[in-house]
Amino acid sequence: MDVSDLARSVIAGDRRALARAITLVESRRDDHRAAARSLLAEVQAAGRQALRIGLSGTPGVGKSTLIESLGLLLTAQGLRVAVLAVDPSSARSGGSILGDKTRMERLSRDPLAFIRPSPSQTQLGGVARRSREAVALCEAAGFDVVLIETVGVGQSETMVAELCDIFVLLLAPAGGDELQGVKRGIMEMADLILVNKADGDLKPAALRTCADYAGALHLLRRRPQDPPGFPKALTVSALADTGLAEAWTEIRNLAAWRQDHGHWANRRAGQARHWFSEEVRQGLLAELNHDPARARMENLGQAVAAGRMTPDAAAAEMLAALAHSTP
Amino acid sequence: MDVSDLARSVIAGDRRALARAITLVESRRDDHRAAARSLLAEVQAAGRQALRIGLSGTPGVGKSTLIESLGLLLTAQGLRVAVLAVDPSSARSGGSILGDKTRMERLSRDPLAFIRPSPSQTQLGGVARRSREAVALCEAAGFDVVLIETVGVGQSETMVAELCDIFVLLLAPAGGDELQGVKRGIMEMADLILVNKADGDLKPAALRTCADYAGALHLLRRRPQDPPGFPKALTVSALADTGLAEAWTEIRNLAAWRQDHGHWANRRAGQARHWFSEEVRQGLLAELNHDPARARMENLGQAVAAGRMTPDAAAAEMLAALAHSTP
Repeated sequence: MDVSDLARSVIAGDRRALARAITLVESRRDDHRAAARSLLAEVQAAGRQALRIGLSGTPGVGKSTLIESLGLLLTAQGLRVAVLAVDPSSARSGGSILGDKTRMERLSRDPLAFIRPSPSQTQLGGVARRSREAVALCEAAGFDVVLIETVGVGQSETMVAELCDIFVLLLAPAGGDELQGVKRGIMEMADLILVNKADGDLKPAALRTCADYAGALHLLRRRPQDPPGFPKALTVSALADTGLAEAWTEIRNLAAWRQDHGHWANRRAGQARHWFSEEVRQGLLAELNHDPARARMENLGQAVAAGRMTPDAAAAEMLAALAHSTP
Repeated sequence: MDVSDLARSVIAGDRRALARAITLVESRRDDHRAAARSLLAEVQAAGRQALRIGLSGTPGVGKSTLIESLGLLLTAQGLRVAVLAVDPSSARSGGSILGDKTRMERLSRDPLAFIRPSPSQTQLGGVARRSREAVALCEAAGFDVVLIETVGVGQSETMVAELCDIFVLLLAPAGGDELQGVKRGIMEMADLILVNKADGDLKPAALRTCADYAGALHLLRRRPQDPPGFPKALTVSALADTGLAEAWTEIRNLAAWRQDHGHWANRRAGQARHWFSEEVRQGLLAELNHDPARARMENLGQAVAAGRMTPDAAAAEMLAALAHSTP
């Protein structure tokens, strides 16, 4: 199938075509990359936008259950939902946190839902860039909501925040002391904090944790992209299926407010610039991994390690060589 | 004074020349950078090495008092001691944590000691690269020990670990729960953990904290560069001046063992390669900040923000332009 056919099938909502298109953008083969670039330009022309929700939480917080419950809530309203994962650990394990779709068994059988495990790439930057393109493909395929999941390990959250319209932080009930376990930078990215497991024995702790975070959010400076009352903290129970409808209402209200006030378009424009700049930077550095640059780096590196040159002088020589050797 | 004269004065141990040389390597003017490069090559030829000790700790843990006490202990033995700071916060404040030398009043009056506040630079990478060169100048000036101080905020610790022979983590007494506040990655970098404030009311807590960390260190995989028993946790009191002599003995023993077993030279060679590679990467990316690249980045960025081009296609165009426009 050629790229234009594939683009048309994606836009027509063909799920197998979407899966193939995502596999294409995840490939690192040079010819695949060129085809992916054409594909992305063609589907962008369709001009469709979904609500992109980033969702982060540490392992054990109940992310899968919550995503499945939220997904089913949305498909019950007739909305089409795609779930993607950005998994920094896949860089090491070569695998995926989502593993197989059986983790969200009910949602994966839903004809309105599409679940895609995270790609296994060798570096987080690569994972995030390809994830951004997978999101664009899901939008072109007509999904109304794209949920982008990541485990909370700091760097991956920053990247997911650059991929989504609304960033949700999922937390477990905790003792008051543990409040400081969430870094200020992560708090500042969150549009909504959901304290999960507000059921059974853990309910009092969940309510207390939620109040603690609500207080902490209140202390943060108000951001121009927020209506009064945001960012907000709520309790939910993915297991007992409570609080999710309220959370979804808050997300919709926030999204609508941002669209009405121009923040939505601004954020998307800023994100597109960010990824453009990232691609250029990564592409520039990738030069160092190919001969003749790679071989020269190795030779100069040996001279530096042996103390025959200072790091600085060797770097100056390398940079001069790069400037002269490019075609 | 020309560069060769300055190099000779530094090697002769002239403190004013050393201060001027450090100011030169901290400068970002292009002509200064070229002069700094010659200077560094000349002083490296002297072939002197100091014991480089990295020391990290969060604000309030008593870093200054400890460095002053340790410094005075060393100068009392006739050793020459230099103190440098790598301060990630100076990037924001434009100032310095060390501020003025009055923070270590007694040590700063000691003729065998040299204290240099951290430079104010605009980015952490820049601070660390220049700090590495300041360390090299102190070594050339004949200092026996260079103490490199940083506040514990994660990234700066990783950089200081790439600057030093031995990395010391300074902690305050804490409840058992707070053990997890120290990230595993930081624990894995530490050669020695010092629990400070082991005096007065806090002594029992310090002993308990020390035992907790000793237990945690024991669980880490033994590294090839460690003799049996390392990494190690000890209690000290910078205020009561206890435990420091023992800590210094441990540092010396560890340093001697690493020198005898080839790890010292290996680590230095690896660090030199690391900084060479960093300089090349930063230099390559710096190309984007100068015209014509800067102007083209801006134009393409606007096209991307307006949705006229995908980030990926714009990046491909930019990278092609860079390859053709270099001389």
